[in-house]
Amino acid sequence: MPQGPGTFITFEGIDGSGKSTQARRLAASLEAAGHDVLLTREPGGSRGAEEIRALVLEGDPDRWSPEAEILLFTAARRDHMEKTIWPALRAGRMVISDRFADSTRLYQGLSRGNLRALVDGLHEMMIGTEPDITFVIDMDPALGLARAKGRQTSEERFEDFGEELQRSMRAGFLDLARDHPERCIVIDGNRSEDEVATDVLAQALARLPEPVAGS
Amino acid sequence: MPQGPGTFITFEGIDGSGKSTQARRLAASLEAAGHDVLLTREPGGSRGAEEIRALVLEGDPDRWSPEAEILLFTAARRDHMEKTIWPALRAGRMVISDRFADSTRLYQGLSRGNLRALVDGLHEMMIGTEPDITFVIDMDPALGLARAKGRQTSEERFEDFGEELQRSMRAGFLDLARDHPERCIVIDGNRSEDEVATDVLAQALARLPEPVAGS
Repeated sequence: MPQGPGTFITFEGIDGSGKSTQARRLAASLEAAGHDVLLTREPGGSRGAEEIRALVLEGDPDRWSPEAEILLFTAARRDHMEKTIWPALRAGRMVISDRFADSTRLYQGLSRGNLRALVDGLHEMMIGTEPDITFVIDMDPALGLARAKGRQTSEERFEDFGEELQRSMRAGFLDLARDHPERCIVIDGNRSEDEVATDVLAQALARLPEPVAGS
Repeated sequence: MPQGPGTFITFEGIDGSGKSTQARRLAASLEAAGHDVLLTREPGGSRGAEEIRALVLEGDPDRWSPEAEILLFTAARRDHMEKTIWPALRAGRMVISDRFADSTRLYQGLSRGNLRALVDGLHEMMIGTEPDITFVIDMDPALGLARAKGRQTSEERFEDFGEELQRSMRAGFLDLARDHPERCIVIDGNRSEDEVATDVLAQALARLPEPVAGS
């Protein structure tokens, strides 16, 4: 599964940590600096993946077992890779994804029975690609939960886990960052949006190649 | 993945080989003989699996890559196992499925690039269960194709492969039967429907336990 010459950046963190906002802001700043940026998100990110996502989120939350759900999310991610991420990376673009496989490792791997080995096995077999840089936006779980609850939408299945789960998710993301220092950068999210954005941009620029002139 | 005390019988073969008819007839005969039979089919066989199937069959045939399609079919099969097949086997019932994993091994494994290793890996990781008996209805590929074309429906994606593919599918099913003599029985399908049904029933009865009285 060829990753190509582009750069792949992901944002991860607990609900309410501000990762979507920060992904958007980094995309805008890097574009302003001359990079050719594709901003995407998971779950979803391609037409087929969005349709699979709708299938998973519709109806009774217990209609799919954890195992079936992991297979469906892996199918969605495979489609997202094929239709969106791999072509952009092959074309040398910068791809920024709001959530990626680390979220699956924690949410499906942790919260719905201990299926981490299954998640990792499917990722290795069907996806393969890892990000070049993962920003883990770290945040006080109580604050994140309050923020997430303030904007609760129809996707509340993914938000409605409570503070204890937020705590174990936070610990899980920090563990992942420790296990993958080659790509993970932990960012203190307990600051103003502007401060966090400035920090993320500085860290990204320190690691990125100069934009290709004229691209 | 517990199979339980029930018996799991599958029917496989090329399109037009008569396997659906024979699956139905065996179910009826075994029920008449006092067995508690559940007749099911793939792709599909549970509500969730049918919805995934509809997602795969809708729209442009090339909208899903072979790999994404294999993941979706594995999710569908996992749901079929969880909701339909495993509960019936645990309850000691006889489950008869019109197509099962061997069809995926050949159709997805052979016809859309050589993805057999991927199909086998996903089966081992996510499904596990193999049938107790697989009836491979063997048939002259030209005859099967003519029969299949005579009843071509909206599912023609699965039928519209032409005679050369029918030939390689037939060879594939015979190879599978040779590789799994512990479960596969090759039945000559180039005979009248009644003759084939009589043969299938005799072979099944020779291998099955007596029906449980009063069940």
